[in-house]
Amino acid sequence: MSAEPSVSAPYEPVAWTAAGGGGVRLLDQTLLPAEERYIDLHSVEAVAEAISTMRVRGAPAIGITAAYGLALAARLTPDLDAVRAAAATLGATRPTAVNLRWALDRVLRRLAAVEGGPDALGDAALDEARRIHEQQRAADAAMARHGAELIAPGATALTHCNTGPLATGGGGTALGVLIEAHRAGTLAGVLVDETRPRLQGMRLTSWELGRHGVPYEVIADGAAASLMAAGEVQAAFTGADRIAANGDTANKLGTFPLAIAARHHDIPFYVVAPLSTIDPATPDGASIPIEERSADEVLLIGGSRLAPDGAEARNPAFDVTPAELITAIVTERGVLRPPLAEAIIGALRAPATP
Amino acid sequence: MSAEPSVSAPYEPVAWTAAGGGGVRLLDQTLLPAEERYIDLHSVEAVAEAISTMRVRGAPAIGITAAYGLALAARLTPDLDAVRAAAATLGATRPTAVNLRWALDRVLRRLAAVEGGPDALGDAALDEARRIHEQQRAADAAMARHGAELIAPGATALTHCNTGPLATGGGGTALGVLIEAHRAGTLAGVLVDETRPRLQGMRLTSWELGRHGVPYEVIADGAAASLMAAGEVQAAFTGADRIAANGDTANKLGTFPLAIAARHHDIPFYVVAPLSTIDPATPDGASIPIEERSADEVLLIGGSRLAPDGAEARNPAFDVTPAELITAIVTERGVLRPPLAEAIIGALRAPATP
Repeated sequence: MSAEPSVSAPYEPVAWTAAGGGGVRLLDQTLLPAEERYIDLHSVEAVAEAISTMRVRGAPAIGITAAYGLALAARLTPDLDAVRAAAATLGATRPTAVNLRWALDRVLRRLAAVEGGPDALGDAALDEARRIHEQQRAADAAMARHGAELIAPGATALTHCNTGPLATGGGGTALGVLIEAHRAGTLAGVLVDETRPRLQGMRLTSWELGRHGVPYEVIADGAAASLMAAGEVQAAFTGADRIAANGDTANKLGTFPLAIAARHHDIPFYVVAPLSTIDPATPDGASIPIEERSADEVLLIGGSRLAPDGAEARNPAFDVTPAELITAIVTERGVLRPPLAEAIIGALRAPATP
Repeated sequence: MSAEPSVSAPYEPVAWTAAGGGGVRLLDQTLLPAEERYIDLHSVEAVAEAISTMRVRGAPAIGITAAYGLALAARLTPDLDAVRAAAATLGATRPTAVNLRWALDRVLRRLAAVEGGPDALGDAALDEARRIHEQQRAADAAMARHGAELIAPGATALTHCNTGPLATGGGGTALGVLIEAHRAGTLAGVLVDETRPRLQGMRLTSWELGRHGVPYEVIADGAAASLMAAGEVQAAFTGADRIAANGDTANKLGTFPLAIAARHHDIPFYVVAPLSTIDPATPDGASIPIEERSADEVLLIGGSRLAPDGAEARNPAFDVTPAELITAIVTERGVLRPPLAEAIIGALRAPATP
């Protein structure tokens, strides 16, 4: 594996690098879109710092980064107890990220069965991290293929937040579908919700689309509905943070009003997410806790305060789109259509594709 | 009339001042919310500059300012041709503002009939400007009364953009209703859409509500729908830029998705606007041209550029809410309810209240 940009991705958000005796190479997302700078990390502490300060973000990309970080630990100190301590350090960086724990546990399980010389632990850990990364790429590629078939020739798609390679370390989820449809020549262009308050659409999605050569225009979140009314949107694609057993979907704030507007205009609204996003233990959207984040994310923009002194703000980070507003969920095992509750049960029971 | 804050308005966006031999006193809105600074203008050129640079904004407030500016001209040079030249200067500042032309024409009509000594022109012009201002105050007060009756005790209302005293020079339209309901003790609080891209909600509406002691919270525009779903919004109130004969309403971008979300949640959606906002010559929303403004309004926030180099943006300044999503239109002559086309004809034909 190389940190060099490949043909299919003109940048690499996370990679293992042989440089400097081995380490984790990240595209520093806190500097985007102003600067594209890669940083090589050669200690567990540096990897942990990069995750906690969001130099890498997006649940799958965080998981891959942590797995490579654990491989780095196993190579530096080929001792199982030391590797477990490193896993604890890495796991504490973003306590709510499910993929982070999952990836660390998976590498640790692999190491528990390893026998051999001093290089065996490090080799096994790096191999497992690469498998995790490769499986993400494969799942993203499968979602992109399934999703791109939903896009009619000449269509303009609307998307929200950031769901590209930056977020998954692979090809992306919803944005991966749009990039694939652009390659296939069917997609006319993308309308990008700026995605207040953190502006992931304006900052990151626009940057990714530009790097992939996909025509796009940024819009204020409030412009989506009138552009739908004007006939300028043929489909909406978003990612998901958690999908309940009945298909209700939690995603970045602003997804739900998009789904309402799409239904109002009879425009298909697609969610693109790997099956690992589905939580069968969550019966419906009402059971999904919605994190309220700092008011400053609303009141300060780009470091400037534009609101009056003493202003208060509400800042729910996510919203829940009820299943009945979702046209289909695109997964790595195909497109799930209503009734979503039944489709989800079937998809989770199906044997994994080889 | 005094420029001192009155009991009912803790600040005065536009006023005639006797200071310095007479002039126009404005609250400089370009400095809000960071600084509340009043500026006294003693030349027609200074008034024209203030309008064109948006130190005063909001169609009714601009009209009142221009009328006072013309009174200033008539007092400085009591000659009808000179006053007409001043009207041309003032009228050229914001070519699309209907109230601006209307106010200037009204003062000029009054002056055409004036006879008397050298002070007569100036006195008549100032009297007419004060009448225009007073009529705006009366219309705003009537809308506030009618609208406040629509608010149930303990309700939280959601609003968009800025429609307060700053925008009308009187008590405001939609925001005037909410301030009145707060005074009456029925309103629990206001959720304020920040209103991207120009952030009039975050910058101006929050400032006005704070000055009137009304509890409020700013939200990202994309948060309105999920707060409705959570039962935290009992009614939505917005203003209007133009109302077509069938009730379709053009207003600040982001109004239409709010109306769709309100309908989805069975929450009443009210438009508050004086009858002068209704354009009987515009049959429906499809006939209303929508101004597309500079992409920089989206891509630059508070002076900082957060989008990638080369990013493009769409920036429609207004959207159209179809009549069928509007619960009622609150005017100075009462509340118009569906079918709005018929209600509008009746309201426009009714004799003016004394």
